[in-house]
Amino acid sequence: MLNQPVQLRIEHQDGRARSGTMITPRGEVATPVFMPVGTRAAVKTLDTDDLERLGPPIVLANTYHLMERPGADLIAEMGGLHAFMDWSGHILTDSGGFQIFSLQPKLSEEAATFRSVYDGSYQVLSPERSMAVQEALGADIAMVLDVCSALPATRESLRHDLDLTLRWAERSKQAHVRTDQALFGIVQGGVETDLRIESAQRTVEIGFDGYAVGGLSVGESRESMVPALAAATDHLPSDRPRYFMGIGDPIGLVEAVHNGIDMFDCVLPTRLARHGTALSSEGRLNLKNLKFARDDQPIDPHFQHPLSARYSRSYLRHLLVTNESTAGRIITLHNLAWLADLTARMREAIETGTFDALRGSIWETWAPEKVPPEVIDRSG
Amino acid sequence: MLNQPVQLRIEHQDGRARSGTMITPRGEVATPVFMPVGTRAAVKTLDTDDLERLGPPIVLANTYHLMERPGADLIAEMGGLHAFMDWSGHILTDSGGFQIFSLQPKLSEEAATFRSVYDGSYQVLSPERSMAVQEALGADIAMVLDVCSALPATRESLRHDLDLTLRWAERSKQAHVRTDQALFGIVQGGVETDLRIESAQRTVEIGFDGYAVGGLSVGESRESMVPALAAATDHLPSDRPRYFMGIGDPIGLVEAVHNGIDMFDCVLPTRLARHGTALSSEGRLNLKNLKFARDDQPIDPHFQHPLSARYSRSYLRHLLVTNESTAGRIITLHNLAWLADLTARMREAIETGTFDALRGSIWETWAPEKVPPEVIDRSG
Repeated sequence: MLNQPVQLRIEHQDGRARSGTMITPRGEVATPVFMPVGTRAAVKTLDTDDLERLGPPIVLANTYHLMERPGADLIAEMGGLHAFMDWSGHILTDSGGFQIFSLQPKLSEEAATFRSVYDGSYQVLSPERSMAVQEALGADIAMVLDVCSALPATRESLRHDLDLTLRWAERSKQAHVRTDQALFGIVQGGVETDLRIESAQRTVEIGFDGYAVGGLSVGESRESMVPALAAATDHLPSDRPRYFMGIGDPIGLVEAVHNGIDMFDCVLPTRLARHGTALSSEGRLNLKNLKFARDDQPIDPHFQHPLSARYSRSYLRHLLVTNESTAGRIITLHNLAWLADLTARMREAIETGTFDALRGSIWETWAPEKVPPEVIDRSG
Repeated sequence: MLNQPVQLRIEHQDGRARSGTMITPRGEVATPVFMPVGTRAAVKTLDTDDLERLGPPIVLANTYHLMERPGADLIAEMGGLHAFMDWSGHILTDSGGFQIFSLQPKLSEEAATFRSVYDGSYQVLSPERSMAVQEALGADIAMVLDVCSALPATRESLRHDLDLTLRWAERSKQAHVRTDQALFGIVQGGVETDLRIESAQRTVEIGFDGYAVGGLSVGESRESMVPALAAATDHLPSDRPRYFMGIGDPIGLVEAVHNGIDMFDCVLPTRLARHGTALSSEGRLNLKNLKFARDDQPIDPHFQHPLSARYSRSYLRHLLVTNESTAGRIITLHNLAWLADLTARMREAIETGTFDALRGSIWETWAPEKVPPEVIDRSG
């Protein structure tokens, strides 16, 4: 079974939602799984010991940031990213595509050219360089270098980015040689369902260990996002992991899983935490709010994780108001544990055939005014 | 034995250095002991779970900061400082004297008046208010409100501050009613040994559960500090805890213990950590230095604490250079563990009659050009 660097064993299905186990040479990952983001080889405010106690089976690190600081060669010399962080769980590295997209690169057939966020120097990222960097970093899963379209976009521009992404995907596959590292393709196409279908089909023709849906959750409405996502996942092989890049809000997660997604990542839960916002069974809580000043309850009385539930809202508000970084740390631990619990609840719901009821309850909590009609129909 | 809120059992002596156990209604504290500073009810970058894994038996919190934010009443309503932080170890609160000293207060016989660091409002701190606040916070050990002299100072000004400190000490003792909370007096007198002796004697006449030496390590030279410290401790009762306020460098610690001190606190190890400086058996290490970029050793190969030694200097330098707060956190854990180990080594040396050899080795590492002659003579 381990001739390939990643296998997916689907164990339960409920509609298009599925749960299972992703198997790599490193071990097993229960899916669906949320991957915390460790941009520069650390999840902000946490250390590796914290991650171990929190228990995510896989974290994400950013190829772009690490190739600039401290450099992929240095990390390779230190034994690779796992040794550098002293982390024995799984790691996925993105390709750098999304970061350079936000830096407004000049795109040529050959590569993307852009200015460094660190020193303003010109940097060039090609599929071949992204592969070399990711192989040096040594994550368990690498991503092809893709071209992410800014939305809204014309069909011409979406078509251009989609085609270039496919040519770069072929070059990425050619350049990628490590057999102990999985390589995932990335579907583009904006919110045009026909382009998403075409992108999915042509990416599958090239053939990858898993498939990501990129270029969504970048500012478009949920109503236009979901059909594009569904179009893509409908044309991806069911026996390969499917990864929705850059989504981390509870509704986004249930909608992704509802549409057959197995993996997701986002900076949202950790960024919100550092600004004092907690995910909870009551929805988002801004813990800086005066109303929490004398509230001795834990962040979420209905979800008490041992690393965070011992601290009261009152204590956390005090630490937030006085800018003590300890607050961001505790809420980071809480938010990541809360999302891990949500994915566990999704797995359980898929197993027991109650996924739509869970989906409905998440919508009711997080966007009660916007619950989609089919959820109301099916969760009763 | 527990009719008094604090007892000291001296178990070993080596010269004037002593080791033992401080006993309170909360439990026991092995001395000498370094107290990490949790200014606003958190040691910066750490949470209470971290403190428990690190294991200091006692931490310090700042009365001034907590009375301003979130306010002593709020903390009392939340069950006191131990419940607020969810910390079951010991806590000592300072009196606010040192913080207001740095805010250049207007002193009257009645109280100190100064501007808030939070909102610029006028604040008044009297001995009675300091006691009320500290009783509301509910630490195990409270401190009298003292008047700290800026050095260098004239004898007239030292005399004024010393006398006012004594009158405030009497008022503090009068105002202090909690029988489960110890109250320590504070010796002042600058670097004038005769004033230190007088201050110690008159403070002991008032009578406290323990005695602190304040107003030193505020910029004066080590050569003028040590005689003032020795003069004070020589006139404090040997069966009461002695606390040197605000010292945290390794040489300062061994000199304090050499002069009969049992307790100390300082923000130095935690502040240095957040700026990337580690305490080590090689002396201070600035981990931002380029020479550590590819150094895969732990911070201190000769002191490997499980919470910090798993991370390489290379990894920490990367996190420091990219401003990841995880670095400050890891080095904070290391520095506090390193100082706890130094105090453990001091206890062991006192027990085995080898304290001067340890003292000499600390001088050799941290100030090789300044080793005092008597240390060289006695450590051979």
